[in-house]
Amino acid sequence: MRLRFVLLLLTAPCLTAAAQGTDSSLVYGPIAGRLLRTGLVRLGAFRMLEQLTARAGHRLSGSAGADTAVGIAKAWLEERGFSNVRLEHIMVPRWERGKTEMARLEIPGKRPVPLRVCALGGSIATPAGGLTARVIEVKSFGELEGLGSAAAGKIIFFNRPMDPALLNTFEAYSGAVDQRSRGAIQGAKAGAVAVLVRSMTLAMDSVPHTGSMAYQDSVKKIPAAALSTRDAEMLSALLQRGVPLRVRLTLSCRTLPDVPSANVMGEITGSQNPGEVIVVGGHLDAWDKGAGAHDDGAGCVEAVEALDLIRTLGLKPARTIRAVMFMNEENGLRGGKGYVADPLRQGEKHTAMIESDAGGFAPRGFTVDAGTAVRAAVEKWKSPLESVNAGRLLAGGSGADISPMVATGVPGFGLAPENHRYFDYHHSDNDRIDKVNPRELEMGAVAEALLAYMIAQEGLPAGTAPPSR
Amino acid sequence: MRLRFVLLLLTAPCLTAAAQGTDSSLVYGPIAGRLLRTGLVRLGAFRMLEQLTARAGHRLSGSAGADTAVGIAKAWLEERGFSNVRLEHIMVPRWERGKTEMARLEIPGKRPVPLRVCALGGSIATPAGGLTARVIEVKSFGELEGLGSAAAGKIIFFNRPMDPALLNTFEAYSGAVDQRSRGAIQGAKAGAVAVLVRSMTLAMDSVPHTGSMAYQDSVKKIPAAALSTRDAEMLSALLQRGVPLRVRLTLSCRTLPDVPSANVMGEITGSQNPGEVIVVGGHLDAWDKGAGAHDDGAGCVEAVEALDLIRTLGLKPARTIRAVMFMNEENGLRGGKGYVADPLRQGEKHTAMIESDAGGFAPRGFTVDAGTAVRAAVEKWKSPLESVNAGRLLAGGSGADISPMVATGVPGFGLAPENHRYFDYHHSDNDRIDKVNPRELEMGAVAEALLAYMIAQEGLPAGTAPPSR
Repeated sequence: MRLRFVLLLLTAPCLTAAAQGTDSSLVYGPIAGRLLRTGLVRLGAFRMLEQLTARAGHRLSGSAGADTAVGIAKAWLEERGFSNVRLEHIMVPRWERGKTEMARLEIPGKRPVPLRVCALGGSIATPAGGLTARVIEVKSFGELEGLGSAAAGKIIFFNRPMDPALLNTFEAYSGAVDQRSRGAIQGAKAGAVAVLVRSMTLAMDSVPHTGSMAYQDSVKKIPAAALSTRDAEMLSALLQRGVPLRVRLTLSCRTLPDVPSANVMGEITGSQNPGEVIVVGGHLDAWDKGAGAHDDGAGCVEAVEALDLIRTLGLKPARTIRAVMFMNEENGLRGGKGYVADPLRQGEKHTAMIESDAGGFAPRGFTVDAGTAVRAAVEKWKSPLESVNAGRLLAGGSGADISPMVATGVPGFGLAPENHRYFDYHHSDNDRIDKVNPRELEMGAVAEALLAYMIAQEGLPAGTAPPSR
Repeated sequence: MRLRFVLLLLTAPCLTAAAQGTDSSLVYGPIAGRLLRTGLVRLGAFRMLEQLTARAGHRLSGSAGADTAVGIAKAWLEERGFSNVRLEHIMVPRWERGKTEMARLEIPGKRPVPLRVCALGGSIATPAGGLTARVIEVKSFGELEGLGSAAAGKIIFFNRPMDPALLNTFEAYSGAVDQRSRGAIQGAKAGAVAVLVRSMTLAMDSVPHTGSMAYQDSVKKIPAAALSTRDAEMLSALLQRGVPLRVRLTLSCRTLPDVPSANVMGEITGSQNPGEVIVVGGHLDAWDKGAGAHDDGAGCVEAVEALDLIRTLGLKPARTIRAVMFMNEENGLRGGKGYVADPLRQGEKHTAMIESDAGGFAPRGFTVDAGTAVRAAVEKWKSPLESVNAGRLLAGGSGADISPMVATGVPGFGLAPENHRYFDYHHSDNDRIDKVNPRELEMGAVAEALLAYMIAQEGLPAGTAPPSR
């Protein structure tokens, strides 16, 4: 790409659809432009994310890092002069990975081969010296059931990949993650002694990806670990050749009693309707692999930066815009539930909930988790949103932290960035700040600021329940 | 981001605009879906890019790497069974960087500080032992003119950054690149002995970015080098403190006589109108820094993959679709000019020219470099294009290689991917395959395949000149 032909003029209007949304363009187009220029020059979201990922270490609920993150987040809100900066106290689960997580593959007549594994979040430990058993591969719970008594005493290896044919990687994730979330339950029901789960990623690499898993009261608890995709392929290839394989798995993780923690929030009080609130949020906790840069440090710093862009421009939103950094999205959702349950919510009306929890990549638009009247209303803002590269408005789920409030009938919005890379990093040592582009991250804050401000000024039609999904 | 709320359903239609483009959706929507699924599973573009970047080394016109790349590209086309696979011979310039490029900053009373520099493409060498001169910083040619005789004998340091406030990084590039392309001419006119130019990137790092520069026959030739942005900031800060600074610059680059090279092409012959041609192209040459993965290895492999997706699906395009990998985009455009001049063009009618030369990132759409009738026609395809994430259609320039043909009245289209990261890598050691995501790259091929196929089936309105820009 050389000099003369680079002026792609991407800021020009759509070829024929320029008339669409003209009214809101006239009002909000110039504001969109100011948000954009201010954000892209100062890159405030990235500055915060550098601080968070460098200083807090990992931020799993109940950890020292999570406590540090609460302090950092509160300081961000105070330093910027927001109103009603406070901690909303909740109790959170506390699970620790411990020092040991290893697996080795025993191939008859050969030296053991180390496997790259990590405990799934919430798993019990193995016996201190590890457990050893034959491995059986399955691709589904149905296939597991078909094994009958053959599963007894074995390590079940769940190896159904995320479907690469799907354009939306979140759909591909949804189609595979039952293996991680319910694999230990189904495995134990079949008599297995442990489960290994192919990492939830479309990348082919040597990095295991953790994530939440469940046990069921009536079913024996067995240890569960994620296996890197390269190792999953290797293990599968050996099994298909009929080689009888045993794996020795050692995990030292444990669950401790619940501990206190907090959501962190602050706001720009509405100039006309202070009791009507638009929440812009993300979650402060992150898995104890990598630095939670995309998941969901990005969502937190975008929320703070969104408010700060509005403040910097001297805008006076008619309704209150509140940044909320929720705690414990990853393994409990206590923050999201605690926010709704807080008695302080009694005197408030929530106009909208906005969450960013799909990575700090370049935005494409928002999912709209609301009924048809709200969806029609936001379509009118398509043109100004498109001017900040966030004009794609699609029906869909909004975010886990805000879901308890959305379930009460409040319209929900989820920032929807480009998502091809997201699961390459998600819940793994890959999720570090070097994977975040400062401009792409800032654009998320700009898009959220614009949407929150337009809702603060215009309101939304009275809540109708979102279509059932 | 946890389990339950990930189904963002990004594949759902636009909230209210679903009716738009329904006819073309019915016909081309299913084809778009098949292209997408086939591409995302096999990731053929990335496989080719791995081969090109691993085997060819750098591919600057006239180099051994460029020759190797011609062979690789021809083999891709032959292995896939395309028709009329051939080399189109042209002469290309040959410039060599040589072994030495260094600069050191001499600060009175301190040890010299090395500066990270690289020669601009086309620069002459310094004397073998280097040249040493005082440095003066300017931000524009106007400021340089204002220096009057003070510039004589100095090294002029052009330090106007790309404007970060612009959403479109190509616009920011266009607004700064005059310093690189014409800095040596303007510097020499002012009496300078050399120029240093701040690298054309929005990233703050230690990697210099090369790129083309011009001399003018009537003006003395002086050496020109790019300086990394970190070093540019450091140098500027010292100069602002009034420290008298000298730089010693040593470059060993040279220009050799032109040598033969080639464009590489192959096609799927049209089933109904074989003499009407849609070109899908990129350029095979790349600067001799990094591996030219995004610029423009990506565009080449997307072109081949686009044809191969069409072939794999068993589609029989009515018009001919031709992949062309042009040579010498970066420092001469001999390939683009040679394509038009080739006598073989006499018997052909070109329906459209499509180029990808803006990086192998996730596509957002296409620029349309044509008159209003063509622009209205392609708007009808917005819906199927949007289904492969490429529905944004904007007026704008298409691509350098295809510009000689577009200048004759043939409609041009430029793949327009997300561009925040592009100049972080462009023309530098950063432009390597680890910066390319296989899915994002493949989506470029899918989008090009779909557009090319729709044009092949439907044609385009008779050419009207694009609006003057």
